[in-house]
Amino acid sequence: MSLPSISIPQARRIAVDVTGAQIVQEESPATRDSRGIYLPHYIEAVSHIAIDIGGSLAKVIYFTRSSHPVPTTPPRSDPSSPFLAPAQTLSSPPAASSSTLPHAPDSLASSSSSGEFHTPERPRPVVNGALTPGILSNARAQSRSGSPARPKKTRGVGAHHRFRRTSLPDPLPGGLVNFARFETERVDDLIEFLQELIAESAKANRVSLDQMKSMVKVMATGGGAHKFYDRLVSELGVEVRREEEMECLILGLGFVALIPEEVFWFSEELVYKVSHPETSANGTPLPPTPVPITIPAAELPRPSPTPPMYQVSFAPAGDDTPVFPCLLVNIGSGVSIVKVDEDGSYERVSGTSLGGGTLWGLLSLLTDASTFDEMLLLSEQGDNSAVDMLVGDIYGQDASKIGLKSSTIASTFGKVFKHGDSSQRRKKAFKQEDIARSLLYAISNNIGHVAYMNAAKYGLDRVFFSGCFIRGHAATISTLSYAIRFWSKGTMRACFLRHEGFLGSLGAWIKNVEPSDEAAAAGINGVAAQAVAEALELDNALEEVSKLSIS
Amino acid sequence: MSLPSISIPQARRIAVDVTGAQIVQEESPATRDSRGIYLPHYIEAVSHIAIDIGGSLAKVIYFTRSSHPVPTTPPRSDPSSPFLAPAQTLSSPPAASSSTLPHAPDSLASSSSSGEFHTPERPRPVVNGALTPGILSNARAQSRSGSPARPKKTRGVGAHHRFRRTSLPDPLPGGLVNFARFETERVDDLIEFLQELIAESAKANRVSLDQMKSMVKVMATGGGAHKFYDRLVSELGVEVRREEEMECLILGLGFVALIPEEVFWFSEELVYKVSHPETSANGTPLPPTPVPITIPAAELPRPSPTPPMYQVSFAPAGDDTPVFPCLLVNIGSGVSIVKVDEDGSYERVSGTSLGGGTLWGLLSLLTDASTFDEMLLLSEQGDNSAVDMLVGDIYGQDASKIGLKSSTIASTFGKVFKHGDSSQRRKKAFKQEDIARSLLYAISNNIGHVAYMNAAKYGLDRVFFSGCFIRGHAATISTLSYAIRFWSKGTMRACFLRHEGFLGSLGAWIKNVEPSDEAAAAGINGVAAQAVAEALELDNALEEVSKLSIS
Repeated sequence: MSLPSISIPQARRIAVDVTGAQIVQEESPATRDSRGIYLPHYIEAVSHIAIDIGGSLAKVIYFTRSSHPVPTTPPRSDPSSPFLAPAQTLSSPPAASSSTLPHAPDSLASSSSSGEFHTPERPRPVVNGALTPGILSNARAQSRSGSPARPKKTRGVGAHHRFRRTSLPDPLPGGLVNFARFETERVDDLIEFLQELIAESAKANRVSLDQMKSMVKVMATGGGAHKFYDRLVSELGVEVRREEEMECLILGLGFVALIPEEVFWFSEELVYKVSHPETSANGTPLPPTPVPITIPAAELPRPSPTPPMYQVSFAPAGDDTPVFPCLLVNIGSGVSIVKVDEDGSYERVSGTSLGGGTLWGLLSLLTDASTFDEMLLLSEQGDNSAVDMLVGDIYGQDASKIGLKSSTIASTFGKVFKHGDSSQRRKKAFKQEDIARSLLYAISNNIGHVAYMNAAKYGLDRVFFSGCFIRGHAATISTLSYAIRFWSKGTMRACFLRHEGFLGSLGAWIKNVEPSDEAAAAGINGVAAQAVAEALELDNALEEVSKLSIS
Repeated sequence: MSLPSISIPQARRIAVDVTGAQIVQEESPATRDSRGIYLPHYIEAVSHIAIDIGGSLAKVIYFTRSSHPVPTTPPRSDPSSPFLAPAQTLSSPPAASSSTLPHAPDSLASSSSSGEFHTPERPRPVVNGALTPGILSNARAQSRSGSPARPKKTRGVGAHHRFRRTSLPDPLPGGLVNFARFETERVDDLIEFLQELIAESAKANRVSLDQMKSMVKVMATGGGAHKFYDRLVSELGVEVRREEEMECLILGLGFVALIPEEVFWFSEELVYKVSHPETSANGTPLPPTPVPITIPAAELPRPSPTPPMYQVSFAPAGDDTPVFPCLLVNIGSGVSIVKVDEDGSYERVSGTSLGGGTLWGLLSLLTDASTFDEMLLLSEQGDNSAVDMLVGDIYGQDASKIGLKSSTIASTFGKVFKHGDSSQRRKKAFKQEDIARSLLYAISNNIGHVAYMNAAKYGLDRVFFSGCFIRGHAATISTLSYAIRFWSKGTMRACFLRHEGFLGSLGAWIKNVEPSDEAAAAGINGVAAQAVAEALELDNALEEVSKLSIS
């Protein structure tokens, strides 16, 4: 999809305090990219619900007040969603490895046998907590006490109870960024969810629905922000503001990259150390070298449908490398490639229509899988060499003799035509698993290739991949990683995000959080400084709690 | 297909005299890229048969002596071949336009209704003429006359009779480069064809088969040169030499570009003149400006599955712009992208496995078409917007208001999943024609995109597309043309070739024609200088003949 590109400077301060932010643990890999982000120091004067409505999926985020990072409802799950849970996901941090790497310290538990991605019902996300605009709770606190509300210091961390929907929201700052996803063709579900969220919040805050609506703003981005604008306005009865898609992606990336353990990448270095232990003269292994070892370019594994699964790395604590400049490759139904400069200004420089929607569409015709997850699961069980024409198929035994790798794919699907005449007969000649593996690889590899070309063109050495296509699927991530590493001869790094699908909605949210939001909220209750000070005191204690609740 | 790249200097003189070369007219569009090339001044001492055996197709060329450019056999036709005749081809020079351009002087006759591409039988190429190595005819001439043979000047052009297989070959220099194609999986047919060619040539030359074999060399390139090497050697009984694939492509390009009316491109300029007539102050059109007008970058049509069909241009007579430097994009089963420097040195810099084999394979599963031609025909009758997710589908009515083009494809096949649950039911919901159009466009456009990125990377402004995938199909050529023109903002040109599929075999042939071949042949009969002089005298007369026989 090649849209006109707009370049505007985006060097704005992010007005959300991310000090002490943490990603909340949820049990289900199906919701791995929907784990809430706990922000212990944040409060917003007016509640913003941000939605990013793409061609296939609508992504929602909203902030609920809580002084406690534990989620208040059971994990959301929507197994029917197209780009939802993959069969094999990169699960909780910091682990992700594979069976091909026995030495990897953390084994990646494949969830493919859990069956949880194959439930026939389609549970919708449920409302989690309540919107609690600062302006409301502070006003209420004032009217209740006649004086500015002041959190009781004696309440202490140990006394924190789980937030109940019917109780009044916690007056402390802090709360959870919640994530939810809907299929765009079920936009009715999305609207119903938002109506419910607003109504529940009115109840929880003990205000009228109209009052609540006056304190809620919806930020909408993505194409659906335009397509469904009128419906959103009339059916929600709140202010709806539309935001430009690319700008939101970049703002969302800038924000989410501030969250610890959000950004990750495949670490060849760790594996290289294991496979190339340095030994002393007498053969005993030397202690690990402190400097990271980089794989020589000649030894970089080339992209392949059966790549080695390396361990996942997160940026080391205290690493304050800025996220910009970089290339952002957002893979939804289609693919947008955005160049981001050091100051946050951006330009959509490229893209391709061969994206998630293509794979989904092709596999929905060529396999019996009825969800994207099932397609990913199929692909894990397949062998692409049954349908792809390999170098070895063309060159025969001699391929390796003349320096070619026999297993390199010369032509995706190049073997398919040779099997008989009728399309029914041809189709039966091939296994769905092999078809799925071939096409998942081909689409991912093509995106990696185009991404590399663009990164090289603009002299960028980091490529962030986002969008719901990725879904934490190990084969997809490794294909993209190897494409970037291989073609760049190891000079570029592919980076991934745990909330990969929510950049647009996060950006729409961030953009509308005014730097004055906190100040405004603080101004009303008059004890902002004190509250912040107390919050800071709570910080360490909260971290203790988090060690228990966040494994 | 990413193969290791080799860069060797190729600044060698092409030892084949192309003075007066012309492409021979044949009737069937099915063989448009197999039209012989008549070389009135060429002779070879030893007969070289060059074959390029790729993953899907084997391409053969050989030279037969004839002082007359008219082909000696009925046009070859192989409608079952995968990348053979498209339903809509760019037919004989200089015409090619389309119904979307009523002002175009030559209307492109679509051959889709002729039915000739749908004959169920699979006729093999037939041997055309005989190999007549100069060394043999000269030796024979010597033995026959006791003195060096000397062509009779009085024979004259008008007396030239059509070459008959049983008569002795014409002692004059000159002859036809013949082209033939086979499916690689029918390699038996190829070998049988070559055996027949050698045997017929022995008969025509009245020598024993063994004698004939001693004067024939087979040059083999492509992966099949290795895979089938042993079979070729044992079953043909002639010397078989293997040549490197990329080197042959480049040599072949350098050679074929010397042939008049071989290289062509879409000329926006001509159409722009028609659509933007300059008018004088009083409104009367001004005479056409002598300088070519270039479409402003902002008005360049973007790639689309329904592009305007511009007129084909050939390099003007006398244009001696060297073909190198350029980018060569060879689209066979897979795609190779080769950077060629000014001196002919080259490097395979990129490629993609999404090529002709991919389209062929996907459409063989998703449609009932049993040949590539039928697939192309289907695609002409389809509407991709039934399966592709367009910008307008995502943004709704507002797309154009915010500066987006509603018809831009956001996601290839992005609409497919929305239609029901079972793959059988989904498949029935979509027309084969729409599927074919979507995928032909997606594959072509992706190749054009990757090609552009590489051309930009290496600062090249001409991109030659070759390979049997193109098959002169107007939609493919226009997609590739617009991709290059659009993304390069009009600074690059996509160039095409009438013998697009034969670069490899032409290169293998050229490489083995020693500069001394003509000299050796001339040395034996001792009248080389005289023969060449006479040939030059014949040149003008031959051109007169060609005006009659080559329309």
